[in-house]
Amino acid sequence: MGTVGLITDEAASAEVLAVFDDIRAVRGTDFINNFWRALANDPALLKATWERIKQVMAPGALDPLVKEMLYVAVSVANGCEYCAHSHTAAARAKGMSAEMHGELMAVIAMASQTNALATALQVETDDVFRME
Amino acid sequence: MGTVGLITDEAASAEVLAVFDDIRAVRGTDFINNFWRALANDPALLKATWERIKQVMAPGALDPLVKEMLYVAVSVANGCEYCAHSHTAAARAKGMSAEMHGELMAVIAMASQTNALATALQVETDDVFRME
Amino acid sequence: MGTVGLITDEAASAEVLAVFDDIRAVRGTDFINNFWRALANDPALLKATWERIKQVMAPGALDPLVKEMLYVAVSVANGCEYCAHSHTAAARAKGMSAEMHGELMAVIAMASQTNALATALQVETDDVFRME
Amino acid sequence: MGTVGLITDEAASAEVLAVFDDIRAVRGTDFINNFWRALANDPALLKATWERIKQVMAPGALDPLVKEMLYVAVSVANGCEYCAHSHTAAARAKGMSAEMHGELMAVIAMASQTNALATALQVETDDVFRME
Amino acid sequence: MGTVGLITDEAASAEVLAVFDDIRAVRGTDFINNFWRALANDPALLKATWERIKQVMAPGALDPLVKEMLYVAVSVANGCEYCAHSHTAAARAKGMSAEMHGELMAVIAMASQTNALATALQVETDDVFRME
Amino acid sequence: MGTVGLITDEAASAEVLAVFDDIRAVRGTDFINNFWRALANDPALLKATWERIKQVMAPGALDPLVKEMLYVAVSVANGCEYCAHSHTAAARAKGMSAEMHGELMAVIAMASQTNALATALQVETDDVFRME
Repeated sequence: MGTVGLITDEAASAEVLAVFDDIRAVRGTDFINNFWRALANDPALLKATWERIKQVMAPGALDPLVKEMLYVAVSVANGCEYCAHSHTAAARAKGMSAEMHGELMAVIAMASQTNALATALQVETDDVFRME
Repeated sequence: MGTVGLITDEAASAEVLAVFDDIRAVRGTDFINNFWRALANDPALLKATWERIKQVMAPGALDPLVKEMLYVAVSVANGCEYCAHSHTAAARAKGMSAEMHGELMAVIAMASQTNALATALQVETDDVFRME
Repeated sequence: MGTVGLITDEAASAEVLAVFDDIRAVRGTDFINNFWRALANDPALLKATWERIKQVMAPGALDPLVKEMLYVAVSVANGCEYCAHSHTAAARAKGMSAEMHGELMAVIAMASQTNALATALQVETDDVFRME
Repeated sequence: MGTVGLITDEAASAEVLAVFDDIRAVRGTDFINNFWRALANDPALLKATWERIKQVMAPGALDPLVKEMLYVAVSVANGCEYCAHSHTAAARAKGMSAEMHGELMAVIAMASQTNALATALQVETDDVFRME
Repeated sequence: MGTVGLITDEAASAEVLAVFDDIRAVRGTDFINNFWRALANDPALLKATWERIKQVMAPGALDPLVKEMLYVAVSVANGCEYCAHSHTAAARAKGMSAEMHGELMAVIAMASQTNALATALQVETDDVFRME
Repeated sequence: MGTVGLITDEAASAEVLAVFDDIRAVRGTDFINNFWRALANDPALLKATWERIKQVMAPGALDPLVKEMLYVAVSVANGCEYCAHSHTAAARAKGMSAEMHGELMAVIAMASQTNALATALQVETDDVFRME
């Protein structure tokens, strides 16, 4: 239904299946969501994207739930429907409560409006905000 | 230098000064950044925006640093230069380390690329991601 | 300073000068703003863009000031700095008062936040909003 | 079907119902569109958003139809599907004719293309457009 | 199902039919896609848009397939679902192979992420990139 | 002047210098543009971004100039000032003529306007454009 078909396990090459298997192992589930099945039309792009996201979203100085909420924030601002759905679901799976979701929505809405105002008013950056 | 002038304390009406004073009190600093001085051209809009942001950014289910990093993420995705500067500075003031900043950048970059891919491929939302 | 140089009257071809002259005649001023001088690097694109904008912004079912404020609204949402400047100035020249500017800002800010919320919540369109 | 469920009247808390009742009273209709039912998952966000939009969209220096068309313009530039639907419907309900809609479309299309050109050419803002 | 109805051949005015006929002749097909049927609600906008796109997309210094892939790239970055579908299909019809599609996707994803990083870091433009 | 400082060769760690050296070798120049010097604040992000872009922009089914123009198109639609500058310069260095630049601008402008129209009209995707 998209601009490419979805690659089923049956239709997948060995290279694609290896990525699917790693997704399943890392996430502890058999489920492969449509994004990866669409991306699998280009095995090299699938592999590069998965390898990178696995690194970026791993626990670090920021915890995985914070990273997932940041992902939602960017996805919403970029107007990506699929991503709004998939990363909101992922954030819930990582422990986002209804209160946290409400505050996430409020921050996104607030930032969206002051972003627009700062752009409309063409506010000049204060010197104090710039790094030398 | 913007599309409106900046309102100095001297030129401010009593209504505007009252908001400036509250900004100073809440933030514990005398400094009023240009965004508020530009917005002060419309005292009602200044007051409404400040009252709302004060509520939204207060500690809650999410801590203030997480909220500030979410603000950066939205601002970057919306391409707001002023906001990228001001909220990165604010996040640092609230304790964002260089490691956290690096991970914030990596998540924003990752989300931007998968947002683009999901949109390009027009990936259909998996049923499991939808709320009933 | 841009990605192309600005074409001065002296450097302009006859085709470019003809467009510059028409801009001057329609606007009743000798001033040609940088946008047109940049676009003049491609005379055909200059001419096509000017001919179309002249038609679109002419008085019609919507008056020119309303059209100019719509132009500001789109420009801000698209994050175009130059356009925020040039069309805010144009709206003022066409009679936008400080009160109107304040309300324009408020609507842009309001729309930006509910746009973000509707996208974040992936609200399904009500049937009543759809045309048959 | 969204990232949150829709709150029916039956499931609504007293706080939510009070907002729904005010929406009905202000608009003179029993119908509550999905945006508000989705937002009602967070009663505080629902109330803050409704109270603000009621103020912003009230008649003022700009008439309600102009405000509604500005809302459409921002919504389209932000790529918000739901909002394009709901605010086009609202503009029609406030008197937007087919001619006005056609001109609204033409201005949005025109601005979108010159926004892109000004960004691509990185046109420097003319001094005359800047406020001191 | 959109914000306007689709104009069938039966409902089309002579002015609209003339554009539909030209679309059919230029493309060598009887099929008129929904975009043009929606735009036909405003015959003048339909005609202006078609006349311009016919010129812009004609072979020139860039070949039609390159132009079509550029169109896909812009459409994806602007988050236009319809356009992602229609121009991906058009690029395939003009000879885009699976390898080319994969590379197009990779470039779009790459640009999206470095765009975000450059905006987040507010990188100052190197003098060498500016035209005098 | 950005949200981070620029890392000079003198201040660079061995890890950063190794990336800078590879950039110099691949591009056949001593010059390191600001983007990489800003990114170097996070050596891991610098390395991951450079390694990926080197792969993505290499000759393949699409030639490097086409890839560079696609990069410009995405950067403009995303409103990235730095990227519009740097990738326009790169496209010129790879052989983009004035004619090609003019056509690139025209396609970007055209796509931007039909993107906006398709979103405003909420045109439903034709079945023929969807992959099974």
